[in-house]
Amino acid sequence: MRFLDACYGRPVDTTPLWIMRQAGRYLPEYRDLRKGNDFMTFCKTPALCTEAALQPMRRYDLDAAILFSDILVAVEAMGVPVEFNPEPRLPRPVRTAADIAALRIPDPLKDMGFVMEAVAKIRAAVPADKALLGFAGAPFTLATYMIEGGGSREFLHAKSLMFNDPTAFRDLLERIADTIAPYLIAQIDAGASAVQLFDTWAGLLSPADFEAFALPAARAVIRRVRREGVPVIYFVNGIAPLVELAAASEADVLGVDFRVRLSDVIARVGSDAVVQGNLDPSLLLGPADLLRERAASIVAEGRAAKGHVFNLGHGITKETPPDNVTVLVDAVHQAGRR
Amino acid sequence: MRFLDACYGRPVDTTPLWIMRQAGRYLPEYRDLRKGNDFMTFCKTPALCTEAALQPMRRYDLDAAILFSDILVAVEAMGVPVEFNPEPRLPRPVRTAADIAALRIPDPLKDMGFVMEAVAKIRAAVPADKALLGFAGAPFTLATYMIEGGGSREFLHAKSLMFNDPTAFRDLLERIADTIAPYLIAQIDAGASAVQLFDTWAGLLSPADFEAFALPAARAVIRRVRREGVPVIYFVNGIAPLVELAAASEADVLGVDFRVRLSDVIARVGSDAVVQGNLDPSLLLGPADLLRERAASIVAEGRAAKGHVFNLGHGITKETPPDNVTVLVDAVHQAGRR
Repeated sequence: MRFLDACYGRPVDTTPLWIMRQAGRYLPEYRDLRKGNDFMTFCKTPALCTEAALQPMRRYDLDAAILFSDILVAVEAMGVPVEFNPEPRLPRPVRTAADIAALRIPDPLKDMGFVMEAVAKIRAAVPADKALLGFAGAPFTLATYMIEGGGSREFLHAKSLMFNDPTAFRDLLERIADTIAPYLIAQIDAGASAVQLFDTWAGLLSPADFEAFALPAARAVIRRVRREGVPVIYFVNGIAPLVELAAASEADVLGVDFRVRLSDVIARVGSDAVVQGNLDPSLLLGPADLLRERAASIVAEGRAAKGHVFNLGHGITKETPPDNVTVLVDAVHQAGRR
Repeated sequence: MRFLDACYGRPVDTTPLWIMRQAGRYLPEYRDLRKGNDFMTFCKTPALCTEAALQPMRRYDLDAAILFSDILVAVEAMGVPVEFNPEPRLPRPVRTAADIAALRIPDPLKDMGFVMEAVAKIRAAVPADKALLGFAGAPFTLATYMIEGGGSREFLHAKSLMFNDPTAFRDLLERIADTIAPYLIAQIDAGASAVQLFDTWAGLLSPADFEAFALPAARAVIRRVRREGVPVIYFVNGIAPLVELAAASEADVLGVDFRVRLSDVIARVGSDAVVQGNLDPSLLLGPADLLRERAASIVAEGRAAKGHVFNLGHGITKETPPDNVTVLVDAVHQAGRR
């Protein structure tokens, strides 16, 4: 399979691609499907998640489908209520050692079985030559949501707990890792051919704190999941100053955001590395010629690595005209031909 | 003067420091001073700006005072209304080539004379061995505010204009550069001993776009201002992937945010560089011992550069206990002793 071959650095006929948030609001059929369903209910309804995951696969020649879900599903399963309006809000944030001690370690099948049901349904519907990606939030990123009670700019509650009570903070990271690792393994058992760990907020740490907190927790998950024999992609948003550290996560593939040259990342981790990325999603709002040119340039940079999965460097925006995605998919497959 | 010596890479008795947003909401005396004054009126009242700039100088042994103002003052002077509630909002954003053509190039003394009056008053009140910093927003950062109509996460309006009409976008950057360069020169004429150019949002560009758009516009300003014979500090928030490009701005000092190791930045630009930074501001919410340890570690990293001005890697947060700043100032001056 082209996608898995690229993840393992094996020869491919062309560069494979998928798109972060490929199932989502830029697609009119997704907006129709969501009508009348609140987001968390949608995430808990395998038939709807399956349909959402399949929508982009019908339109585009993408090399991987991805489970439709949200990284906060696992947080809710740990006993922390989550709302979406539409931004995530956690009305009872985790702020103290006592709050942390009260968290549950969920059973993936019993508490999040709807996710595994969706994985199985999507796997059954996607052609055998396409991959199916599972995913979860990385421990540090989920910890920040739990502590802040939502998104944040400066993550002062999270960093304050981290600096003032590092023992409690590490305890939280471990509980999340103990939730996420079996959750990803359950997704693999249900049919996921690879998984991505999203560390969306880890790039807001100084490198010293990334190394001390976010990295060991992510690595603990990655080590356990890799034993299942599928590739693990570790996406750190804002990876530029953390490339060498992120590579020490032992992930098979490093996900790279758009704010760094892919060639710089490859130069720093070495030509044995496998990378994923990294087009600026806003190029999908620009002219087609520029989109083709930039995509081809990233494909060319990716040839210096042992393997390259093309992707955006961040989620696709809801403002993207769907036809521009067709242009992108064609451009990548054409530029990537061996 | 210790501050200027460090900016020029000359010998110093210890590492100088100032703190981004050192005059601001974490100080109770500042909150008192602001009472009953809306922010823009405050910025236009030299006596209030002077008092705000002096408040931290009375409490702390900082090596530089900084003009109290806002980077959007120059945007308003270009004819784009600005409100603060408290986040900045520009109710008539600049979105088209016609909007750009309608912008004014203000006369610094006639249209922003209150700023130069504040600079002169602060200079008269600050001891002669302390520097006074002037500042302005860099062209790309001001352009994004003007186009988005405020802050943004993804800057889709700005990037869309940049990709779809690069000529209009460059025209906007040039008009801002033509506003900012004489504005900074007027601050120098009024008594500023150095100036900082804030490129707060340039780190949200891919390196290719930083090089194509933000960098040439910043460099145009820096070249004109450096002829005045005072050092220019160029602060790019999210500098890690852009270090070599930012160094090509020809600024005397590179401002470094906290999301990268200062030693990595110095290794990349070379030991001839002068750097400023880069403590994570949230460490001011942690225990004093950790704060001292991290500050000393950054001071030690800074010794590899030709010159080092200590600073936070981002503005101080309003949650900071003022006494922790005393701890920081002492720690830096002690660790930096030659």
